[in-house]
Amino acid sequence: MTAQQSNTGLRIRLEPGRDREFLESWAELAAIGATPAGGVERQAATAEDGQMREWFSQWLSRRGFTVEVDRVGNLFGLLEFQPGAPYVLVGSHLDSQPRGGKFDGAYGVFAGATAADRIRRQAAESGVAPMYNVAVVDWFNEEGSRFKPSLMGSAVFTGAADLEDTLNITDQDGITVRDALTAINSIGKTDVFPDGDVTRRLAAYAEIHIEQGRELEKHNVSIGLVDRTWAANKYELNVIGAQGHTGATAIDDRQDALLGAALIVVALRDIADEFGEELHTSCGQLTVLPNSPVVVPREVHMHLDLRSDNDELLAAADAALRKRIAEAEIRAKVKVEHRKAHVWPGHHYQPEGVELARTVAGDLGMSSMLVQTRAGHDSTNMKEIVPSVMLFVPSVEGISHAEAEFTSDEDLCTGVDLLTETLARMLDGALDSATANGVR
Amino acid sequence: MTAQQSNTGLRIRLEPGRDREFLESWAELAAIGATPAGGVERQAATAEDGQMREWFSQWLSRRGFTVEVDRVGNLFGLLEFQPGAPYVLVGSHLDSQPRGGKFDGAYGVFAGATAADRIRRQAAESGVAPMYNVAVVDWFNEEGSRFKPSLMGSAVFTGAADLEDTLNITDQDGITVRDALTAINSIGKTDVFPDGDVTRRLAAYAEIHIEQGRELEKHNVSIGLVDRTWAANKYELNVIGAQGHTGATAIDDRQDALLGAALIVVALRDIADEFGEELHTSCGQLTVLPNSPVVVPREVHMHLDLRSDNDELLAAADAALRKRIAEAEIRAKVKVEHRKAHVWPGHHYQPEGVELARTVAGDLGMSSMLVQTRAGHDSTNMKEIVPSVMLFVPSVEGISHAEAEFTSDEDLCTGVDLLTETLARMLDGALDSATANGVR
Repeated sequence: MTAQQSNTGLRIRLEPGRDREFLESWAELAAIGATPAGGVERQAATAEDGQMREWFSQWLSRRGFTVEVDRVGNLFGLLEFQPGAPYVLVGSHLDSQPRGGKFDGAYGVFAGATAADRIRRQAAESGVAPMYNVAVVDWFNEEGSRFKPSLMGSAVFTGAADLEDTLNITDQDGITVRDALTAINSIGKTDVFPDGDVTRRLAAYAEIHIEQGRELEKHNVSIGLVDRTWAANKYELNVIGAQGHTGATAIDDRQDALLGAALIVVALRDIADEFGEELHTSCGQLTVLPNSPVVVPREVHMHLDLRSDNDELLAAADAALRKRIAEAEIRAKVKVEHRKAHVWPGHHYQPEGVELARTVAGDLGMSSMLVQTRAGHDSTNMKEIVPSVMLFVPSVEGISHAEAEFTSDEDLCTGVDLLTETLARMLDGALDSATANGVR
Repeated sequence: MTAQQSNTGLRIRLEPGRDREFLESWAELAAIGATPAGGVERQAATAEDGQMREWFSQWLSRRGFTVEVDRVGNLFGLLEFQPGAPYVLVGSHLDSQPRGGKFDGAYGVFAGATAADRIRRQAAESGVAPMYNVAVVDWFNEEGSRFKPSLMGSAVFTGAADLEDTLNITDQDGITVRDALTAINSIGKTDVFPDGDVTRRLAAYAEIHIEQGRELEKHNVSIGLVDRTWAANKYELNVIGAQGHTGATAIDDRQDALLGAALIVVALRDIADEFGEELHTSCGQLTVLPNSPVVVPREVHMHLDLRSDNDELLAAADAALRKRIAEAEIRAKVKVEHRKAHVWPGHHYQPEGVELARTVAGDLGMSSMLVQTRAGHDSTNMKEIVPSVMLFVPSVEGISHAEAEFTSDEDLCTGVDLLTETLARMLDGALDSATANGVR
């Protein structure tokens, strides 16, 4: 490693023992909210999420990070190298799906914290500080399982969502985001970057994540350089029928909300089959009322999504779905209400960030390739306000949002090394020439 | 009325003021567990069910009935006219569906109690007691919404279900029938008819109910004489897939439990459309795991039923469903587990009971017609062990298991008069020549 380092001019020394150190802390972290089948369950602002935040805050504090929480529960660990200078943010999310995998989100937060800590140690030893300051972030409620929508903390942070509206969102038991965050003592009175335009306080953002796909595994490549997100149309529908007796109500008299919903679920798959692999369609959540064996359902709530990297194809699929919904209304004698829609257009990540990470991977002797992300990430929001780098490590069989999710220790450690060197270069202004995608 | 009475030799005098008396108590009863939209919610062994049982017990006690509860929570009001003589049972159920109608079940119990009370009063005034004793019954958990299956109390009473197994059945929160009944103080230590074969202690059974269909309304007839039940095949299925990310998991890699379930729901309707109005098919309950917007569902639990008055057609529909389930398994890449099945064959009610009720209706100057019941009733169980009479009054638009369920005061009062005279004749041995359908 020493030879390689001197050859390529790496900023950060690859210390022996660093992998073991990372993996020991990682094992501690992954035990919080662990499930018997090898996954984790730490939904946003639950007791397990609170326990994790406490563990992580202590980890940060012991290493000299200043821990702060903003008004929507985003948790930051700040290291100030240059008073008043902008920050580079690095992180992901510590919350999980119900019976989710242990790598999704948590790996990115802890890899980011480890990278920032390695940079801190080297700066202290060498007496040479980076140009910018660094902050590790655990974005609140990336998953959107308990409180909808997903990407909640980063959406408020970047101005894509309203703070007050978000704090008033409720879970299935009617508990608000505000009350849930208060219950785990994870809500701040002020923002962490409070003075007006947050973008003036930030230089760039970096995030590493498991792939949630099979491209890296298929090509036997260590690092994915994410250059583009898939666009997503997400809908909440209410299917309204009329309650009746399953035995007594004649078929012709039924207004069966569940039949209407089932026709829509099947239509989603028919459309995916018709449009091919450039389109993903899903219904992940479907709730039946009153849900009694001998009662024709009066109402069904459902969450749908359509995703593609091709905006025209997505629009065509959307039109096909609306036609099928209208047909379902007629056949099941129901009315379909469109309650909410979230539309994320597909977007490129800044090419300067992709190029930076490609160069670092080359300098470290790691294989890399361009990949797209079909899933949303907090970087989907962040790239709109600052230049952002999104990196993937392989995930066996592409399994994700499931307890069987798995990434090898070797791939985890490779990702931390890559992120550390990339972050170090970002802290010295490597992305100063790049610009954010959007203006909020 | 007096003229008519003397002409036809009715046993029970039609007292002026009886309708008002019935309707006043009925209004009190229907207020227990009332919902804002005009229905009721009194699921089995909930606090509302307990409140209703308490009200009903007091109503019975004040009129000289002895109130007893058996080991599975069936509540009896006993009037002994002839010590040691068999009993005629009359009743239905006081529990309701979630947001159910106020007439389903409760009308039958309170009409039965009113009929028995009118017979008691006349016996006391005339000094002439009936041949048999009478008991009013509120069968536990007819609806099967909180604890499955339905018809629970009468199934244990008639030997169709095991007592211990039944007491150990749990609701969605893991609460057993035993604990729920104990919590509302409605579980007995012994049975009400304890000495061996219950059928030796019973002479006959009568039940009146709203129609849950439109035949009476369509023909402008006051009374339905139920001569046959539809057969029902009821299934609980588990659809097993694999959890995944809705964005990231390729369509070809998905094992989507909700798609599998939706294909089965649609298949049920396709089969109903194909087989015509002699067949009813439904899925009333469907629960998705983990039910998060961005997660491909790993498992779906569902309750299906197929009902018909034609056994051959039902068997053919069942075969068609199994074929469609196998196809759904292939398309959605899931496995469908058949967890439980309850099969109720179609059966005739004793023709002597139908004939008795037809004669009484004629004597009272009421219109009547033969009808079938598509829904199960506690009499479905009772007719297997004793001769049973099942009567219907009209229900507007056939609405049932819904808050909009409605029967007019006039139809309610007509039904009570019919039930009273029919019960009086049963108490004097009118069905002594009839025999039960089955041997348990």
